[in-house]
Amino acid sequence: MPDEQMYQTGMKIRKEIFGAETVDKRMSSMGEFGAPLQKLINQYAYGEIWGREALPRKMRSLLTLAMMAAANRPHELRIHLRGALSNGCTREEIREVLLQVAIYCGIPAALDAHNMALEIFAEQGQRP
Amino acid sequence: MPDEQMYQTGMKIRKEIFGAETVDKRMSSMGEFGAPLQKLINQYAYGEIWGREALPRKMRSLLTLAMMAAANRPHELRIHLRGALSNGCTREEIREVLLQVAIYCGIPAALDAHNMALEIFAEQGQRP
Amino acid sequence: MPDEQMYQTGMKIRKEIFGAETVDKRMSSMGEFGAPLQKLINQYAYGEIWGREALPRKMRSLLTLAMMAAANRPHELRIHLRGALSNGCTREEIREVLLQVAIYCGIPAALDAHNMALEIFAEQGQRP
Amino acid sequence: MPDEQMYQTGMKIRKEIFGAETVDKRMSSMGEFGAPLQKLINQYAYGEIWGREALPRKMRSLLTLAMMAAANRPHELRIHLRGALSNGCTREEIREVLLQVAIYCGIPAALDAHNMALEIFAEQGQRP
Amino acid sequence: MPDEQMYQTGMKIRKEIFGAETVDKRMSSMGEFGAPLQKLINQYAYGEIWGREALPRKMRSLLTLAMMAAANRPHELRIHLRGALSNGCTREEIREVLLQVAIYCGIPAALDAHNMALEIFAEQGQRP
Amino acid sequence: MPDEQMYQTGMKIRKEIFGAETVDKRMSSMGEFGAPLQKLINQYAYGEIWGREALPRKMRSLLTLAMMAAANRPHELRIHLRGALSNGCTREEIREVLLQVAIYCGIPAALDAHNMALEIFAEQGQRP
Repeated sequence: MPDEQMYQTGMKIRKEIFGAETVDKRMSSMGEFGAPLQKLINQYAYGEIWGREALPRKMRSLLTLAMMAAANRPHELRIHLRGALSNGCTREEIREVLLQVAIYCGIPAALDAHNMALEIFAEQGQRP
Repeated sequence: MPDEQMYQTGMKIRKEIFGAETVDKRMSSMGEFGAPLQKLINQYAYGEIWGREALPRKMRSLLTLAMMAAANRPHELRIHLRGALSNGCTREEIREVLLQVAIYCGIPAALDAHNMALEIFAEQGQRP
Repeated sequence: MPDEQMYQTGMKIRKEIFGAETVDKRMSSMGEFGAPLQKLINQYAYGEIWGREALPRKMRSLLTLAMMAAANRPHELRIHLRGALSNGCTREEIREVLLQVAIYCGIPAALDAHNMALEIFAEQGQRP
Repeated sequence: MPDEQMYQTGMKIRKEIFGAETVDKRMSSMGEFGAPLQKLINQYAYGEIWGREALPRKMRSLLTLAMMAAANRPHELRIHLRGALSNGCTREEIREVLLQVAIYCGIPAALDAHNMALEIFAEQGQRP
Repeated sequence: MPDEQMYQTGMKIRKEIFGAETVDKRMSSMGEFGAPLQKLINQYAYGEIWGREALPRKMRSLLTLAMMAAANRPHELRIHLRGALSNGCTREEIREVLLQVAIYCGIPAALDAHNMALEIFAEQGQRP
Repeated sequence: MPDEQMYQTGMKIRKEIFGAETVDKRMSSMGEFGAPLQKLINQYAYGEIWGREALPRKMRSLLTLAMMAAANRPHELRIHLRGALSNGCTREEIREVLLQVAIYCGIPAALDAHNMALEIFAEQGQRP
């Protein structure tokens, strides 16, 4: 398969999850400097991996939340909290993931992530 | 609820996942020194959290694999690879989790975890 | 012991350290979504662990500062810098902990933590 | 050698990289509380290590960027992005380091660092 | 470009660094289970990134050592210590990288890495 | 003060904690390659920091255990478990530190550290 095709497949998946406008804005905000990284994100992250069908997207979202809470990446965690809601994860499922984080990565990791989840829920017009 | 009850509930769940003999051995190997930690593991980790029904055990296993690969805890990762198989996760699902790790936590984290998964599969009489 | 009792014991300790108003505000700010995590925090973190008497609270504060600087959790580090002062740790003791961080976790971890300590001291009407 | 001499050597190197005014400001902002840490930074970090000639400063800058992206230290990463430019690293070389981060530490680490690099470039009157 | 071509380019680079036999052995040891990860390693890590010419391979090796020491990945660190020697890095340059690790990630990270470097040097018939 | 003096002070403290024979063996095992790192360890870690009297050695030991469990450095954790016993920390105090780790860094970090503590206690002819 031509790699351009995988890039397009990945970008399509990425836009389905986060919205075309958001993705276009993210890509253009990094300009030419960010083009090689955006290629990795579209072609590899969303094309090669998110495009695999052996695991539902909802599940990939929850795994990503767990890892980004564990690895302490607040910027990415916020992005994927929005993505998780868009992929059909419920607030209850997100909470369960974050409670699992408390056990395996410590309570502060879970507390930070709870606070971010509440921010994102509020941003989306939901009440805590 | 008396906390002793949550301890028993947790130990029961833990034994369903890992086998009674294994759990008894792990608990006794740490003796009196390890008793307070074992209380946390049984009552808190397995009772309070694994005992919550809003997420299936299979899902909790996959989340735990992702976090233990991310956080670089090989001892715990091996334990939960066995637990994941016991909770009904397939080798394909485990692989998908580890590929998601490659994107979000880097290829070396995924590679280490693949090697451990192959060890555990071999240990259980499965071929790579 | 009923787990409700350990929850109350933990919440009492937590309020002794951080003040009742602060703790009430933190708990209510997370609403119903945060209730299971708040249970973990009160019952396990403050009840089961901070409630153990084999180590003085002052000592638990200093250990927590070291771990939160090591694990790069600024939100929690700020909370426990306030807690450390409330538990009777001196500015000199806090500084010694952060110098120990420089050796074992690198200078940037210590530098970030020094900056946060200076913020918290200033907030409490102390001069750098 | 008297340790005061190594302190002066280190402070000189530090000021060559970041500018005398910036370094003086950083040192005085931490007051007497920060003096022992500033001794470590000047004498040990810049004197003992940056002062070694077996590796060019430009190379030490790129290594530091890679480690601070890996270890998730945004404050230090911003400081050393400025230092890297001052040490003669090009934007292209900085980008290559951050792409290497994507592979070995995951895409979110690289994405956070790209965003910080773009901030610093903009701050220095450069276009993305 | 067809992605198969990037895969072949990457595998060629990987074999130039680590030797064809070693790479073939690593790939086959993971069997069919490891094939998607090996695709990422060959196509993405070695093709897309190591294949970029804006940074010399020697430099990529030193960056990788710094990151793997920082991120605590001993298995990968050993592999890339061998790769660094094969890419023309000297023992002195490797030592400088590890001393830089001491400052930015703490002395234990540098000490672990020194011990691994000495192992790999010994393995290659070199004296400490 | 001449830096040689701080080096000697640090080496003296290091030998008081770990025994002269052990320290001599560790230093010589790294040969000339390890000499600059050993200078950092003796002069900075043990001279500049452990030599500060504002915190008792026993306390520095417990802080180091907490950080090395948090940062996942098993080699260093084993060394400092021995050092903690030598500095007069009791098994009960060590256990309290590791329980604090369970809350702030997750149960797997505490479990790994418990297992190492039991190893070191056994090595020293103590029963679990």
